[in-house]
Amino acid sequence: MRTIDWVDGAVEIIDQTALPEDLRVLRLHTVGELIAAIQALAVRGAPALGVAGAFGVALAARVHADDPAALAQAVHRIETARPTAVNLARGARRAARLLPAGPAAVLAEACAIRDEEVAASEAMAALGADLVAELCGARPRLLTHCNTGGLATVATGTALGVIGELHRRDALGAVIASETRPLLQGARLTSWELSRWGVRHRVAVDSAGPFLMARGEVDAVILGADRICANGDVINKIGSYSHALGARRAGIPFLVVAPESTVDPDTPTGAHVEIEDRGAAEVTAWSDAVNPAFDITPSDLVTAIVTDRRVIRVDRGETPAAPSFSPPSTRA
Amino acid sequence: MRTIDWVDGAVEIIDQTALPEDLRVLRLHTVGELIAAIQALAVRGAPALGVAGAFGVALAARVHADDPAALAQAVHRIETARPTAVNLARGARRAARLLPAGPAAVLAEACAIRDEEVAASEAMAALGADLVAELCGARPRLLTHCNTGGLATVATGTALGVIGELHRRDALGAVIASETRPLLQGARLTSWELSRWGVRHRVAVDSAGPFLMARGEVDAVILGADRICANGDVINKIGSYSHALGARRAGIPFLVVAPESTVDPDTPTGAHVEIEDRGAAEVTAWSDAVNPAFDITPSDLVTAIVTDRRVIRVDRGETPAAPSFSPPSTRA
Repeated sequence: MRTIDWVDGAVEIIDQTALPEDLRVLRLHTVGELIAAIQALAVRGAPALGVAGAFGVALAARVHADDPAALAQAVHRIETARPTAVNLARGARRAARLLPAGPAAVLAEACAIRDEEVAASEAMAALGADLVAELCGARPRLLTHCNTGGLATVATGTALGVIGELHRRDALGAVIASETRPLLQGARLTSWELSRWGVRHRVAVDSAGPFLMARGEVDAVILGADRICANGDVINKIGSYSHALGARRAGIPFLVVAPESTVDPDTPTGAHVEIEDRGAAEVTAWSDAVNPAFDITPSDLVTAIVTDRRVIRVDRGETPAAPSFSPPSTRA
Repeated sequence: MRTIDWVDGAVEIIDQTALPEDLRVLRLHTVGELIAAIQALAVRGAPALGVAGAFGVALAARVHADDPAALAQAVHRIETARPTAVNLARGARRAARLLPAGPAAVLAEACAIRDEEVAASEAMAALGADLVAELCGARPRLLTHCNTGGLATVATGTALGVIGELHRRDALGAVIASETRPLLQGARLTSWELSRWGVRHRVAVDSAGPFLMARGEVDAVILGADRICANGDVINKIGSYSHALGARRAGIPFLVVAPESTVDPDTPTGAHVEIEDRGAAEVTAWSDAVNPAFDITPSDLVTAIVTDRRVIRVDRGETPAAPSFSPPSTRA
């Protein structure tokens, strides 16, 4: 099952707002429907958003084939539907480069992006599982934040894909999934995916993570990213930074898993990223609220970044912009 | 309005599980009813629990006046209804020392504990507001966690009492109240109290606090305690520790406000405290969970502890067990 796909002339997504109660597939026929689904987080997760952006342009290319102005406007609306994850705009722009070649070429490019994300997940799972074994030894107890499984990509996932791979290797000690307020992607989506995979786990409130680390119950934190800056700063779901502070104090690795499509060499540091505020209604019905959906983990708190092509040892001074391309085979 | 009081032969409490929708008063006539209310968090907050423990013994003294064994058992059940806050057992034991003098003497002692907590709140508000002004200058922007208002004490509060006092002095910049998962004491109770006081504020998810500090939006963290250890370690609502990590990284004060009745010189460090796990059902309906209700903030992350009698500058090496009793009047 894929989180997002192109089926019979429309975009099909698993509606992530309905899980875990209902496994419901939405068919999106228009750019407007797609943007609404993106903004409501019916489809979310940086890699999945990259595919959504590309499929969105494929939808636009069909509808507005004879109206270049409307087409350009539609592409812009897709690119800017959400501001923080780099993948959305990047996927849309990559597909849009094929617009002169016609709708079929755009769709083919979007499908290529989808297929590349599937392959990237597989590569990250293997590289990440090797790294966790190297850093944490046998049967590590991992804490993950938000949802980084197949629901956030197309299949398999980023950080959760690594956890799944360790489970398949019978090399996983325990998993704590932080619930991820305000929208509970951890308690709803990660827990649902882990249960389907047969991985035992426990959910914790977000602010318990650092304390569980201090109590010695966690061997590493592993999570995804919405954007990785050139200097190694990591933009990810709100709460990632506090988990990084907890990991540093506990002396355990803080690992980030994301495809190369999430690495943005054009963003020098986290200070250059627009952090989406999603408004009070997501947080509370009783008062005003401040609701940053993402935060910035400074690179000095990051142990390593695992992409589909490389392991960037940020703790050794490597950065995404100037990687040390030591091939994985030299490790272990 | 008092959070807890003795009225016409029974204990009356504001039912904190019903706020903010309903302001409902419960009358508790038996030890069993009182313990159930404590365990359901209908009454909560360390100082309020101290008063509840004492009133519980007053109830027991009336019912079991002629049955010393049943009376002793009832006192033990009250003392151990919840394990982490020191006030509950301490209030119950203090009232129980009057048992030989009869029910009226026990009730008088319980009412004295209530009155002392009211006076302690007033003293903390003044001392704490002075300290915040000293450390943060004019119109500080404060972040508080959980609920430490009149609902957690008898009236006024601990950390929230300080915020209220700054508001009365027209010396408050802004307030962020963390929502406090899983039971939302911040979003439900603190927000309700602040609104009644006319204090503008915003709620944030717990894991946003450290990021808001990193963004420069907070001048100090101020919160309460369930137990303060001899070395200055602070036991408080889960999430306090992650806020302390955020404050340290941001270079802002981390201030703890609690009455002397919460200082426990018999507990050397946080490692000696039983941390209550309240079970999965409070966190999620969909999976297993780990749910520590409190955490331990090591003393090296604490700037100062404000009690009703003193300011303990933990950042200067002072500890609750060996305080420097410099009178407040020597400061500003």
